[in-house]
Amino acid sequence: MATTDTIGVAFLGVGRMGETHLRNIAGLHGVRVLAVADPRPEAAERGRALANAEAALTDVGQAITYPGVDAVIIVTPTETHARLIEAAARAGKAVFSEKPIALDLGETSRVVRLVQERGAAVQIGFMRRFDPGYARAKARIGAGDLGRLETFRALSRDTYPPSLEFLRGSGGLFLDMAVHDLDLARFLVGEVEEVQAWGAVLIDDRFAQANDADTAVTLLRFQNGVLGVTETSRRSNWGYDIRTEVAGSLGKVVIEAPQKTPLRFARDFSSSYDHFENFPDRFEHAYRSQLQSFFQDLQVGRKPSPGPEDALETLRLAVAVTKSWREQRPVKVAEIQT
Amino acid sequence: MATTDTIGVAFLGVGRMGETHLRNIAGLHGVRVLAVADPRPEAAERGRALANAEAALTDVGQAITYPGVDAVIIVTPTETHARLIEAAARAGKAVFSEKPIALDLGETSRVVRLVQERGAAVQIGFMRRFDPGYARAKARIGAGDLGRLETFRALSRDTYPPSLEFLRGSGGLFLDMAVHDLDLARFLVGEVEEVQAWGAVLIDDRFAQANDADTAVTLLRFQNGVLGVTETSRRSNWGYDIRTEVAGSLGKVVIEAPQKTPLRFARDFSSSYDHFENFPDRFEHAYRSQLQSFFQDLQVGRKPSPGPEDALETLRLAVAVTKSWREQRPVKVAEIQT
Amino acid sequence: MATTDTIGVAFLGVGRMGETHLRNIAGLHGVRVLAVADPRPEAAERGRALANAEAALTDVGQAITYPGVDAVIIVTPTETHARLIEAAARAGKAVFSEKPIALDLGETSRVVRLVQERGAAVQIGFMRRFDPGYARAKARIGAGDLGRLETFRALSRDTYPPSLEFLRGSGGLFLDMAVHDLDLARFLVGEVEEVQAWGAVLIDDRFAQANDADTAVTLLRFQNGVLGVTETSRRSNWGYDIRTEVAGSLGKVVIEAPQKTPLRFARDFSSSYDHFENFPDRFEHAYRSQLQSFFQDLQVGRKPSPGPEDALETLRLAVAVTKSWREQRPVKVAEIQT
Amino acid sequence: MATTDTIGVAFLGVGRMGETHLRNIAGLHGVRVLAVADPRPEAAERGRALANAEAALTDVGQAITYPGVDAVIIVTPTETHARLIEAAARAGKAVFSEKPIALDLGETSRVVRLVQERGAAVQIGFMRRFDPGYARAKARIGAGDLGRLETFRALSRDTYPPSLEFLRGSGGLFLDMAVHDLDLARFLVGEVEEVQAWGAVLIDDRFAQANDADTAVTLLRFQNGVLGVTETSRRSNWGYDIRTEVAGSLGKVVIEAPQKTPLRFARDFSSSYDHFENFPDRFEHAYRSQLQSFFQDLQVGRKPSPGPEDALETLRLAVAVTKSWREQRPVKVAEIQT
Repeated sequence: MATTDTIGVAFLGVGRMGETHLRNIAGLHGVRVLAVADPRPEAAERGRALANAEAALTDVGQAITYPGVDAVIIVTPTETHARLIEAAARAGKAVFSEKPIALDLGETSRVVRLVQERGAAVQIGFMRRFDPGYARAKARIGAGDLGRLETFRALSRDTYPPSLEFLRGSGGLFLDMAVHDLDLARFLVGEVEEVQAWGAVLIDDRFAQANDADTAVTLLRFQNGVLGVTETSRRSNWGYDIRTEVAGSLGKVVIEAPQKTPLRFARDFSSSYDHFENFPDRFEHAYRSQLQSFFQDLQVGRKPSPGPEDALETLRLAVAVTKSWREQRPVKVAEIQT
Repeated sequence: MATTDTIGVAFLGVGRMGETHLRNIAGLHGVRVLAVADPRPEAAERGRALANAEAALTDVGQAITYPGVDAVIIVTPTETHARLIEAAARAGKAVFSEKPIALDLGETSRVVRLVQERGAAVQIGFMRRFDPGYARAKARIGAGDLGRLETFRALSRDTYPPSLEFLRGSGGLFLDMAVHDLDLARFLVGEVEEVQAWGAVLIDDRFAQANDADTAVTLLRFQNGVLGVTETSRRSNWGYDIRTEVAGSLGKVVIEAPQKTPLRFARDFSSSYDHFENFPDRFEHAYRSQLQSFFQDLQVGRKPSPGPEDALETLRLAVAVTKSWREQRPVKVAEIQT
Repeated sequence: MATTDTIGVAFLGVGRMGETHLRNIAGLHGVRVLAVADPRPEAAERGRALANAEAALTDVGQAITYPGVDAVIIVTPTETHARLIEAAARAGKAVFSEKPIALDLGETSRVVRLVQERGAAVQIGFMRRFDPGYARAKARIGAGDLGRLETFRALSRDTYPPSLEFLRGSGGLFLDMAVHDLDLARFLVGEVEEVQAWGAVLIDDRFAQANDADTAVTLLRFQNGVLGVTETSRRSNWGYDIRTEVAGSLGKVVIEAPQKTPLRFARDFSSSYDHFENFPDRFEHAYRSQLQSFFQDLQVGRKPSPGPEDALETLRLAVAVTKSWREQRPVKVAEIQT
Repeated sequence: MATTDTIGVAFLGVGRMGETHLRNIAGLHGVRVLAVADPRPEAAERGRALANAEAALTDVGQAITYPGVDAVIIVTPTETHARLIEAAARAGKAVFSEKPIALDLGETSRVVRLVQERGAAVQIGFMRRFDPGYARAKARIGAGDLGRLETFRALSRDTYPPSLEFLRGSGGLFLDMAVHDLDLARFLVGEVEEVQAWGAVLIDDRFAQANDADTAVTLLRFQNGVLGVTETSRRSNWGYDIRTEVAGSLGKVVIEAPQKTPLRFARDFSSSYDHFENFPDRFEHAYRSQLQSFFQDLQVGRKPSPGPEDALETLRLAVAVTKSWREQRPVKVAEIQT
């Protein structure tokens, strides 16, 4: 692919998140959506119109090989990610895919190997890394502003508990949800050596039926000696609650966005401000930035990041945490074979 | 214009702000940029490519009448706004124009009259009204959450003082800069009856050479009895500093966005966080929302707002403040003939 | 008075504020309350017990000359301050008196002159200067951290409007209430040259009956060129609301204490925190510090501050603001003769 | 002891914390320090003068039985607490003692039994419970504002690492320092069932020499099903860092006091504010309130709280955490015999 010309895009999957991505791509210099595909014709057409694309297709495979396509954006259901990444990589395309590659380590490893063999440019959608707060934290840590790192803390509470159907196919609390915090742990601090998770069903018995937990706390010991904790919950009556801290010998960063709008309301001897409702509003900026970064990397011939190796390593960590919770014992990440 | 079909757009002016607007339009449902015009051919072409438009034109008049155009977006230099709004209104197009219509009351009144005669749908770019903070403040006030209004306060400090050339054509501190706070005053509280401004040159003697002030404070008395103050400064060593408060018998709203990213950095017995540098980052969301609102209004056949009458009334208020400063006396807004 | 021995104190006036002062004195090294006086015997005795003092007196004059007394603390009704300060100064005692010395410029001037003639150590209770926020602001300004000063802003809203009886003897909105902000203006920025005030009755018609305003906004022009605004209101449905800002060429300080306790409560998509109810809780620390400072100054033989000259100059400024409001014109502070 | 008369106090131990307590007692209604004791005569005398007490003694036992004494305040070195509490209880006095009773479970149990047999009124100095933030959190939880509790989190970082001598006698990271968070866990959420701690030496090898950790993370499972985490560190380059959160089905409380003074300083595109340096300034208000509460309880004949049973149960929990860390396994609190 020539790095100075316009990048032709095939866009797969026009759900709510797909529309967000389409809108974000629309404003990018040097990027042009050519084909939009979704098995539902009206969804495909809605996406095509939104992107002012040439073709609306119901066959996603056909979209990958549509004439002029350099890059494929995959926002289809989770179980199709691995297959589509592979198809695109085989066709010599660059790929941005929503997370996860797969919920299975073997399948994920297979994709990683294929991508490596083909030398494909592939980015996986861990959007939090592109949030201005997390990006700035990474920069500060890299610049040594925190000194030697000592502790990590992540809290994640989703606003609404998922449905039972979703739960059964989700991979569970740690693979589906804590995985974002585990990716941040790796991004900000480094690789984890050992974990210990405790879980419980405190919100809804559906989680017990799905053989899952809805609330969990986890200890992390990183290879560089840092100690960490994570808290994870499937429900928050006060909105999407994400907070991360990294502390070191010199300083500490706290990443937290409690205030949704720049408004404070004072009345009756107190002040209040609104919270973000959910990830689309909390990480609105991050969703835009991650695609911007993907296309900029392609334009300058740089490997996009985080790539499939990162996705695999983060999945492995989430599998270790799940195992620790199920087997009620500390688990070394090295135990988990990929 | 049919309200259910795609809105065809002619886009005039591809400077930095123009590119921002083009990017924001790109992601909108049911909107399609057909022609982009700028006297500089390479700017026109850059805009065309960004919007994936049909035509890049150097004649802005030609763009207005380009086939299929329903709405015209005007982001050209200030002195061309009035003429282009009129041309578009005469051609039966809807218009979004950057503020101001003109720096002259007579010229602005003439545009208002023409727009009214033609029944044209015209919105002027007072983007702060679309900031989530100000929009929520307006909603709270409308819902009676503040009770009867009592006081208004606005502070605005621009980051970088403008050049001397800019200054001479700017209309001065109040028409160019305080006008945003005066528009918010009218938006949130209502019409102003009387003003009293004091100004000074504290930052740079260039302002004295331009017969202008760089720092000012103003008293406002609203028709509904509310009392207000504004503070205006042409420079801020700590970033773009915009703060607005409205207080009433029951409650108070404070609109302020001190923190640029969701990161707090703690070190050496203190915490710090970054500020917004300037209006493009502080009002990023507002710039998107105002165009979204414009096109949604067109799509449902509603009159867009704020329209030229608002722009005229706000200009009149800014003229009154300028007069008060120059003549060193309180000025009733009714003194200012439009 | 020997500066190394224990300072013997006569304490005059045991109302609510008096008890607060007594408690604050109780914990000070090298200070001993000997006599407590209040015309109401049970109040005098309550004060005596609280301070573990020798004598409870109903004659305040007698307390001033009680054996061993070095310093007199005056927390009696306003109209008695001048007379008691004079009596104490004549008796060679150091004095801490609640503000104001008097509401009348002539009477205040007379006290200032007497104090100067006697070389008495006298401090007047502008407690805000001792708040950790204001003290730190003063230090930062003094260290040049803000560069050349440019703007000042003060907002004060009292929680509860006073009674009509109080109003009639209060000296009005500016002498009774805005005077605290005017003192801070002088403390932080310097002397004021000219003022322009606008007032209104927005809260309660009682203020009109008392020929007073309940809401006001004021412009200030300082001798050093700084421009300022103040907002003053007699009622706040959201608690005691005090905010002050000073901005300069390099930096800005904002002094504000919105949060009463270190607790944030999140629920229903928003967070809230409690406000201070009134000055005793907002300025709890300042009340302690100002007496600490008074006695430390005595112990090391330094003149306590702010002294009667400061009180006079601040009163003069408040009189100028009142005059500007009544006569509806800008008033130079130099017009006001002391 | 008559509950309506003045409470006579014997005060034991005049170090820095002792002086703080003496100052705080000084301003209390109905409380009178009669004797101050410290083995160092000059310390005893300094305390006596500060409290305006009758006697300065070097024999603390003598102070307990000083004529008129109703209550004994113990601020002596840790190893003397148990013996002095017992002596005072035997003498029929009420007792406020700094924490801990002892670092040994057996000794602590013995004191608890004696106190129970004698029916003595004893309070142990877990001052954080009296911080306005924690007190308000307790009230909100008690009122059901958080719904059913789900998660607990506590972070504590001390500013300065202790000396090696101190370390050896301190009982270690969990008994000396984490104990405050464990007490809050019990205070806010309830009894803990099981713990799992991981520790490390990241700050200074002295901790390894003392067979101690300087950094630790811990999982807690409460009897009511709540899951919790704590983070503990012996050093903070950004000041005393204490943060606690409790979340439930309806709401969440966050107790955190990042800002030392009501001042924000803006400059160079960022804002900053100062942190508390250490526990005396962060918990200044709590230290005052806990003694106020102690004496008020005595005055109305109510049992003061937290009492020795609380201290014992919190110690037991800290012992369990220590054991978990040393033995690298989860430990049930029930394993720990008192």
